[in-house]
Amino acid sequence: MVTSMTRDAYEQRMARAGQAAAAAGLAGVIVTPGPDLAWLCGYQPTAVTERLTALVIEPGRAGRLLVPVLERPDAERAAGAGVLEVAGWSDGADPYAELAKWLAPQGRYGVSDGMWALHLLGLQRTVPGGGYAALTEALPMLRAVKDAYEVERLAAAGAAADATYQDILEVRFAGRRERDVAADLARLLTEHGHSQVDFTVVGSGPNGANPHHEAGERVIEDGDMVVLDFGGLKDGYGSDTTRTVHVGEPSAEERTVHEIVREAQQAAFEAVRPGVACQEIDRVARRVIKAAGYGEYFIHRTGHGIGVTTHEPPYMVEGEHLPLVPGMCFSIEPGIYLPGRFGVRIEDIVACTETGGRRLNVTGRELAVVR
Amino acid sequence: MVTSMTRDAYEQRMARAGQAAAAAGLAGVIVTPGPDLAWLCGYQPTAVTERLTALVIEPGRAGRLLVPVLERPDAERAAGAGVLEVAGWSDGADPYAELAKWLAPQGRYGVSDGMWALHLLGLQRTVPGGGYAALTEALPMLRAVKDAYEVERLAAAGAAADATYQDILEVRFAGRRERDVAADLARLLTEHGHSQVDFTVVGSGPNGANPHHEAGERVIEDGDMVVLDFGGLKDGYGSDTTRTVHVGEPSAEERTVHEIVREAQQAAFEAVRPGVACQEIDRVARRVIKAAGYGEYFIHRTGHGIGVTTHEPPYMVEGEHLPLVPGMCFSIEPGIYLPGRFGVRIEDIVACTETGGRRLNVTGRELAVVR
Repeated sequence: MVTSMTRDAYEQRMARAGQAAAAAGLAGVIVTPGPDLAWLCGYQPTAVTERLTALVIEPGRAGRLLVPVLERPDAERAAGAGVLEVAGWSDGADPYAELAKWLAPQGRYGVSDGMWALHLLGLQRTVPGGGYAALTEALPMLRAVKDAYEVERLAAAGAAADATYQDILEVRFAGRRERDVAADLARLLTEHGHSQVDFTVVGSGPNGANPHHEAGERVIEDGDMVVLDFGGLKDGYGSDTTRTVHVGEPSAEERTVHEIVREAQQAAFEAVRPGVACQEIDRVARRVIKAAGYGEYFIHRTGHGIGVTTHEPPYMVEGEHLPLVPGMCFSIEPGIYLPGRFGVRIEDIVACTETGGRRLNVTGRELAVVR
Repeated sequence: MVTSMTRDAYEQRMARAGQAAAAAGLAGVIVTPGPDLAWLCGYQPTAVTERLTALVIEPGRAGRLLVPVLERPDAERAAGAGVLEVAGWSDGADPYAELAKWLAPQGRYGVSDGMWALHLLGLQRTVPGGGYAALTEALPMLRAVKDAYEVERLAAAGAAADATYQDILEVRFAGRRERDVAADLARLLTEHGHSQVDFTVVGSGPNGANPHHEAGERVIEDGDMVVLDFGGLKDGYGSDTTRTVHVGEPSAEERTVHEIVREAQQAAFEAVRPGVACQEIDRVARRVIKAAGYGEYFIHRTGHGIGVTTHEPPYMVEGEHLPLVPGMCFSIEPGIYLPGRFGVRIEDIVACTETGGRRLNVTGRELAVVR
């Protein structure tokens, strides 16, 4: 098993990105600090600032990295920097004019989704004949298909999230604030090897009916449903899992709603195989919930890709016609949200394999009872 | 003294932003999550994602905020939300088409520097007749002039950074790794009331000659110069100060270089008064260092604005003709970097007042000797 990314591995990634750009009719890609840059060459500036850092990849030639001259020593230490041409620009110079020297004047380039508008506008002004398209739209597959190394990293992050879930079942819920349980989740994710905790949702009782509620001052009570949605980065790859637990014995209605969500999640999982359109995964989950009479209470898409970020293409949403490909990894997370009452969501990360889906979260999906 | 931002205060800020946009020939401003959004209406989404959140401000009318429908309850709880029209968009809808309904089809808008390219390109595609300019370029003064409330917040953050510096003088340097001293700085900033630590540079010996070195494994030795540059956010406003200390007795050359930087910093501080161009502050500092024969070793601009971020306009850099205005707050941080040997930097945050400069960092600027 591959245990770390070498210079050669980064070189291959960048070469594939250049080929993918050409296949999509692009002159190349321009990537600024963030997950794409880290994924392509291993470089993560310590801070993202108004000073332009940009990696240019064009098919069939070595990548070129423009950095503020002060940050050049750091950039040159990145694992993939050895195969790059690195140039520095100094305060007072025009970084867009420097970058433009590398670009085809009439070229169309894919750019990082998160490239600052400041920089994109600078490029548009300096290279008026050029065209630009966000990578999510122009090259949605760039990071979407994971190789064996990446799937194992995601599986390891998933295992750490699963261990966190097993441990949280043992803590006390009733009488404690949501934010206290959220702090437990963050501590456990860290103990299980996460370097970064991105979210620790604890949605108790009516708060669970807001899918984007984080965790607040509400004191959890006996009889509450509690949505637990947590994840972050372990060794550079993301985790994201959701389980809904119940404090004390659930009512018949609570059991029913939970079971519908469990069945929807299971059906969507079973629909995973190469060639199926992403929107079909969403439709399968939605069909189950709708058939049970709760369609209007499933108010978000069914899933999102995951890799070096916790939200990335492909999206399991109506209108996404991209076919699943072995190596794609994404969440399947249907939910039912009853305003003012409670919510239920169940989420696993799933990898598409040659023969179907592989769950990267494997904790029980039954309704667990906590104290 | 104002102690917190009220709904009315946000409303006034937004009204002023609309007027400033009109004065700059803009139809309005479009702001996505980040410091501008927090500053204008107090809303800070828990995560910045690919889902569009945007505040539109046009002169003479109430602001309008478009958010993912899931995040609407959180948005409506923001302190400034009460004076906004808030609309939600659902997964599967086109958020750019929703936003476009609010925009003048041929209007030119200022946009957040950090707006994602994904969103800017979506707007450009949906409103092809519109124009866009980054706020730093179109409205550099938007957040640059602080009111009395903001200056006092910055002064309080500066005082906490100063207390951190006083405390760090008491810790042991020799024999410890840079990262251990950096951890001390982070702990002290937090103890002195910072909610967020943005940087803790510890550049010892030759590492001090790289102005963007953070802190690493190098063990600090007796005889080292050590650059300490640290800051973060306290109550929503930034701190950023640098002092260079010496482990044990400095050499004559080390004393000389430090004294040149101190004089440069003092001269630039004394040059601060309303009406002086920002670039003049840079020139004054540079002149002192050049006259002493070290001009080629001062390799960055002299300063940057500070407010709800630690790097923002106005910039003290050659080519910046903006005049200083009472209420502007910015760093003055000249340095000398001798490759392979050591570096010296001294930095204070300074507020421009009606009569000159006011230092918001007031610890001694002499070369302190540590253990």
